[in-house]
Order: sequence, then C-alpha cells, then structure tokens
Amino acid sequence: MSASPPSSALLTDRYELTMLDAALRDGTASRRCVFDLFTRRLSGGRRFGVVVGTGRLLSLLRDFRFGEDELRFLRDTRAVDAPTLAYLEEWRFTGTITGYREGELYFPGSPILTVEGTFAEAVVLETLALSVLNYDSAVATAAARMSIAAGDRPLAEMGSRRAGEQSAVAAARAAFIAGFGATSNLEAGRRWGIPTMGTAAHSWTLLHDSEEDAFRAQVDALGLDTTLLIDTYDIRSGVETAIRVAGTGLGGVRIDSGDLPIVAAEVRGQLDALGATGTRITVTSDLDEYAIAALAASPVDAYGVGTSVVTGSGTPTAGLVYKLVARQDAAGSWVPVAKASADKVSKGGRKTAFRTLDRGTATSETIVVADGFEEAPRARDDARGLQTAFVVDGEIAPGFEGASGVAAARAHHATVREELPVRALALSRADPAIPTVWVDLD
Amino acid sequence: MSASPPSSALLTDRYELTMLDAALRDGTASRRCVFDLFTRRLSGGRRFGVVVGTGRLLSLLRDFRFGEDELRFLRDTRAVDAPTLAYLEEWRFTGTITGYREGELYFPGSPILTVEGTFAEAVVLETLALSVLNYDSAVATAAARMSIAAGDRPLAEMGSRRAGEQSAVAAARAAFIAGFGATSNLEAGRRWGIPTMGTAAHSWTLLHDSEEDAFRAQVDALGLDTTLLIDTYDIRSGVETAIRVAGTGLGGVRIDSGDLPIVAAEVRGQLDALGATGTRITVTSDLDEYAIAALAASPVDAYGVGTSVVTGSGTPTAGLVYKLVARQDAAGSWVPVAKASADKVSKGGRKTAFRTLDRGTATSETIVVADGFEEAPRARDDARGLQTAFVVDGEIAPGFEGASGVAAARAHHATVREELPVRALALSRADPAIPTVWVDLD
Repeated sequence: MSASPPSSALLTDRYELTMLDAALRDGTASRRCVFDLFTRRLSGGRRFGVVVGTGRLLSLLRDFRFGEDELRFLRDTRAVDAPTLAYLEEWRFTGTITGYREGELYFPGSPILTVEGTFAEAVVLETLALSVLNYDSAVATAAARMSIAAGDRPLAEMGSRRAGEQSAVAAARAAFIAGFGATSNLEAGRRWGIPTMGTAAHSWTLLHDSEEDAFRAQVDALGLDTTLLIDTYDIRSGVETAIRVAGTGLGGVRIDSGDLPIVAAEVRGQLDALGATGTRITVTSDLDEYAIAALAASPVDAYGVGTSVVTGSGTPTAGLVYKLVARQDAAGSWVPVAKASADKVSKGGRKTAFRTLDRGTATSETIVVADGFEEAPRARDDARGLQTAFVVDGEIAPGFEGASGVAAARAHHATVREELPVRALALSRADPAIPTVWVDLD
Repeated sequence: MSASPPSSALLTDRYELTMLDAALRDGTASRRCVFDLFTRRLSGGRRFGVVVGTGRLLSLLRDFRFGEDELRFLRDTRAVDAPTLAYLEEWRFTGTITGYREGELYFPGSPILTVEGTFAEAVVLETLALSVLNYDSAVATAAARMSIAAGDRPLAEMGSRRAGEQSAVAAARAAFIAGFGATSNLEAGRRWGIPTMGTAAHSWTLLHDSEEDAFRAQVDALGLDTTLLIDTYDIRSGVETAIRVAGTGLGGVRIDSGDLPIVAAEVRGQLDALGATGTRITVTSDLDEYAIAALAASPVDAYGVGTSVVTGSGTPTAGLVYKLVARQDAAGSWVPVAKASADKVSKGGRKTAFRTLDRGTATSETIVVADGFEEAPRARDDARGLQTAFVVDGEIAPGFEGASGVAAARAHHATVREELPVRALALSRADPAIPTVWVDLD
C-alpha cells in the first residue's frame, strides 16, 4: 500500500459520539467498562454460528483515528462540542479485546468479542465491530452449512455481484474460512491470498459468431483443462460442440440454468457416451445449501454458489449485539449491568467461556459469569477454553490479520467443526446443537 | 481527500479478465458491444423497484485503473498473460453509459444501465456495476415501501450495525434517496451531506449509577430537545423519571422494545397525564414496512429503522443482471444477441424506454427494441423518456456524484413516486404495478 488507508472512525453511529460528548462532560467517560458482543439467539433457526470478521476488525481498528477530515466534519455538523473534538484528536484504543478466534463456532450467549477499556474508548467501537462481525458471521454460517452439504465436492464462492462491492470482498473471505475452496473475487485474492477462479460468462459465447468459435477461442487461450459454459443456447448441442472442439480431454463443463438434477444426469450421460468420461461438471444456478444437498446423488463434480452465500441464505445479518455488561462505579468498584426491560434481556458480568466435550464431541457452551475481577476459571480436561487475547493494552496481537490470519481461521474452523454432534449437521430449522449452560460464580 | 482513492479495478470477478485475455488473443476484444443491466422480475413480489447506485458507480469508475499493485497481483497469480497485462495498464473506459436516473422507478426489463464500448472496455465493469446497483437498489426499494407506509412521519435509517461496514454507508444513501430523512451513519453524512441523528443507547443508562443520573447528564449535554431512551429498566418509571428530570418541555422519548402499539399508547397516555403533551415518541424496535403500517393509528411521531432496511426487508439483493444484448460482427454490422436456453431468457437489441402516463399516472413501462443504430424513438406527450447519458465517450457527465447527485436523486424519486397508481402502494406481494410493454421496431 502506498498511501495510508482511509480512517474507519466515521463508520460509526452518531449516538456513540453524542454519548461520548455527554460522558466527557459528566465525568463518566473515564469509567472502565466491559462490553460483550454476542447473540441472544441463532438467527434463522441455525444450529450453530461461525465467528468471522475479527481479523478484519483488528485491521480497521488500526485505521480508527480522528484526523483532520473527520474532525472537520464533526465540527461543521456540530455533532460534538469543542472539548470532545480535542479528546477525539488524541483518541487511541488503549484497552483490551478478547474473544473467539475466527472460524470458531458460537451459540446463544457466547462472548464472541469482549472489549474492555474506558467508556470513551469502548463505546465508539460498537458500530464498526457489529457491522464487520454481523455480516461476516452471517455469510460464514451460511457457507459452513453449504460446505457440510457439499461434502468432499469443491465449492466456489461467486456472489460478488449480489453484495455491496466491499461486502463482496468480505464475503469471499468469510466463505473461504468456512470451507469454500475458492472465490471469483480478485480483490479477495489480493488482500488475503484466497485462490481465485473463473473462466467465461454467457457474454463470451454471445460475443462470437458461433458457440464453436467461442469454445475454440477459449480453449486456445486457456488450454484444454478449462471449463466451457454449455448452456447459452441448447445444452445438448453445447456439450456436443464442446467435445468436438476440445476433444475428450476437456477439463470441464459448466451448467448455469435448468433443472439441475435432470440436466446434470443428461450431460454426464452425453459426455460419457462421447468418451469424455473425465470431463468434470460444475453447476452454478441459484444454489443454496438445500439445492446442494439435493444434488448429492447427482453426477456433479463442483458447485459455484452466488447470491445465497453472500446474503447469508435467508439470514443476511447474524443478529449480534454489543452490550455494556460491567463497569466501574464512582468509587471504582465493578458493577455488573444489564438491560432488564421487556423482550431484550441480557446477562451482566464478566464471562469466561468453555466448550465442554465428551470424547471429542461438543456437549455444551458453558459460560461462567463473574461480577468483577475474580480469577477466571481454568479449562478442565473435558473443556476447551474459547477466548483469546486480540488486543492487550492497545497493542494488537500478531497472527490474526492478513492472509496468515485467514489461513489460520480456516484451519481452526475445519478442526472445531469436527466437534459438532451429528444433529448439528442437518439443515432444517432447530434449536442450537448444544445448550448454553450459565454458571454464576457468585 | 489527501491521497488518491484506492483502485476499484479488482472488485471484479476473475472470469471477466479471463474472457478479456482470450478476446485479446482472438481479436474479438475490439468488437463494439452493448450490455444492458436489468432485472427479469421484481424480487420479493415487489410492485416496483427504485434505482439507486449509479452515482456511486460513476465515482468508482473514476478509480477503476490497473496500477502497479493490481498488475502485480494479476501477474503473480497468472490470472492473465503478458499482452493482457500491457493492455490493462492502459485500460480506460472510452465508451458511453446511459440509463435511469437515481431515484427512478424500474420494472421487469427496464434498461436501468446500458454500457456501450468495446468488449474489452465493457465486460470488465460487470461485477462492479452489479455489486453497486444490486445492493443499493434492494435497500432503496425496501426504503421506499417503508417511506410510503410511514406517510408524513419522519423516518431515520439506523441499520449500520447490521450491514457490512461499507455497505452500511451505501445503505444510508439509498434510504435517504428513497424517502428517509436522516441516518445514524456519520460517514454517510460526511460523504454525501445526509443529515445524521442519534442521542443515546442503553449503555448510556447502564453506565450511570441510576437512570436519573443518565437522563440528567444527557439533558445537560444535549439540551431539553433531546430524546431520552426510556426502556432500559421499566418503561413506566423511565417515562416518569424522564419528565421529572427534564420537565414537560422534553423533546422526545424513544422506545426500543416491547409490543409497540400497546407500549406507544401507554407512553403517550402517561406523557399527556404528566403534562408533556408536546414530547414526541420515537419507536425503533425491529421495524419493517409492515410494522410501520401497523403503527399508523398509534400515537407515534417518528420511526427509526435498522436491520430490515439495510437488508432489503427480505430481499437483500435486487436480482439485476448485466447481459450482452448487441455486438458488432466481424464485418462491423450490429447483431442483437441473447441467451436462449432454459429459464433465463433475455431480450437482445438496443432499447429505448418510456413511462407512459395517463393524466399523470403511470400506465406502462414501454421498451422499444431496435436491432442496431436506427434513430431512437422520441418521447410523446403522454410518455416520459427514462434514459439519461451518464458517460459520453469516456467523459463522466457532471451532476450525478457527490452530495448534489444525492439531493437530485432524492428529489427525482419524490416526484416520480407520485406517478405510481394507487395499487402500487399496497405492501402485499403482487405483480408489478404497471406492465412492461415491448415494442419491436423491426
């Protein structure tokens, strides 16, 4: 990168700065606080969630600064007063952030991210943290379900066109962490080293005077191992033309329309009859986890998924919230706090989370709640501690950002997914795969 | 902006560059092409769509360049060969882009955006154009429905936390164009001059030793006209405390939980009984267009909408596609082209679009199709031409980007929405409000 990246500080809801303004005035801005990022329930009747986004958030935290441009906007719109502007000019996160590693599973109440610092430091990160984790985790959770449905068959993410242009890049990352093997999105390849793929669209065939011309030009340019898109006109003649042009050594064909179980079987039969028994079939038409599962017995070699993965397959946001759960009072003592009214109850206090296991299979999400600074409970042999330190006293720990962070998250996800009980792998709506068990230390 | 903005060129599916690579090799890269961006149907049973995103796309087109970083990535990953790298280094869009103004309504087949240029110029814009317009138009369409349901009551967008951090900024813009009055998102305020709003979250109350302390500090900092969030503990005592602290001149209270029609009526009654007859009630809990419509008879003064607007209220992407519809052949003659197989039929040829009107009310989307370069039909008195030139011979026309572009789009939307027939204003799933009428010139 040549220039310094743009500031992320205004990717923020105004009320955070309004609260900061008022808190600087009444002195509560310096109270130490603990905010938890968690979900009250798994959206969409999912049996588990997949945490993704923390690595991106840490990079955005590096760029969270109130520079000249940001301060000018806040001054011109009178969003905050002069002492707050002076405070923001020096704003820097000096607190601590712990939480679940990317790729980890989560359940209702899991303390996915815990931000501890002064109110002034921690409150302004609310919107950014939620934006990143809500979108990325929604995509990752959908992607994991698709990856489970696909079994050993390779999956590629190709939904960039159905998500905002920057969300598309994040979606490619989330899908890769959750088990996809590649993406169509070049920027995701550049930023995080995710393998990119793609050959040709229908416009390629339409550009040429005949399908045969198009196939020949593609094979000339990309070699025999390329994948030809055979459904621009008529699938049967498309297959015939493909093999006539490329021979039986053709790498693959792609089908992007029609009733896939029927069409895939017909194309396989035709390819085999023509002697192209090694030519792979990729399908890409409106797939989601249910369609993928329905194709399990069909002669399909690979899947390309677009819309449904980048929009969370019916659940486009993970429903995560960011709540104050503990703070110091005027005397410096810790007080657990929680909203108490109506339908949105949360649990105050500091949390330590474990996944209990029975012979390698997860049996519960156990969350130990303490009022204040008691020593955190240790993991037992049959329980895995779930929280990691991402930021300590303002210093971002190494290993979570960039391409290496993505690779580590993908590996971690593959490992922990093995702990899921079999019932977690079904696709229907249901309760979480394991119960959340709350343990109060007091 | 101090530094030059990052390149948008890799926000692109790899297959566009793969096709370019093959087309440079076989000479078809220089064929002139016409691509249309349109939808085959209105997703989600919507009665109309709202075009948003074009102004953002034009700005991203300014930054679409293959610089050192982009070329290095493409070279290192062998995505394209050396002649293609040399071509990309000089890539610049020299073609023409026409289409519907932002804020305009669209229907099945509407040529929302038409890109004309060489294949090489036009094919690489596919992903970026679709990413921007699919997301922004999905949000704008949902927002317009909410704005219709809200009637004269003000609507604020506050869903940033439920969308990717950059999509959140685009969502604020889309909602504002489609009739919302303000956003919580500060970056949207900075980029496009959209009014921002926000006062306090539950964490503000929880930060303090009592609700009364929190309210008092907020009123001290933000003045009597502020809005107090009254549902952190018990709504009834929250209202009582609010008026005790602020007096009957309090600007407003906000309710973010509970059964809103009941709670709003109770709070109104309590405020009135306390003498706070001018104190406004804002509700913000899980609203969508249906919930807003259900509150029409309730004593609510303003709505804040989060999740549902930034996720398109069940339709998170608009289903727009980008298709080659005409191209020159080897001899330079124009040929209309279209995919013909199975379920995804499109209509080849160059299109001119009109909205026919009867005494000011829209009666049809009339799309005239021509094979090639015949003179475009003129609008009649009872029909409004729908296409505008955004880019001519590579030069981006003024007036569509930035804050002034957003203001113009918002005004345009308010005007054209008045043309909708009454049946278009209902929220249930149905056919498009007006039929699409195809007229073939040949």
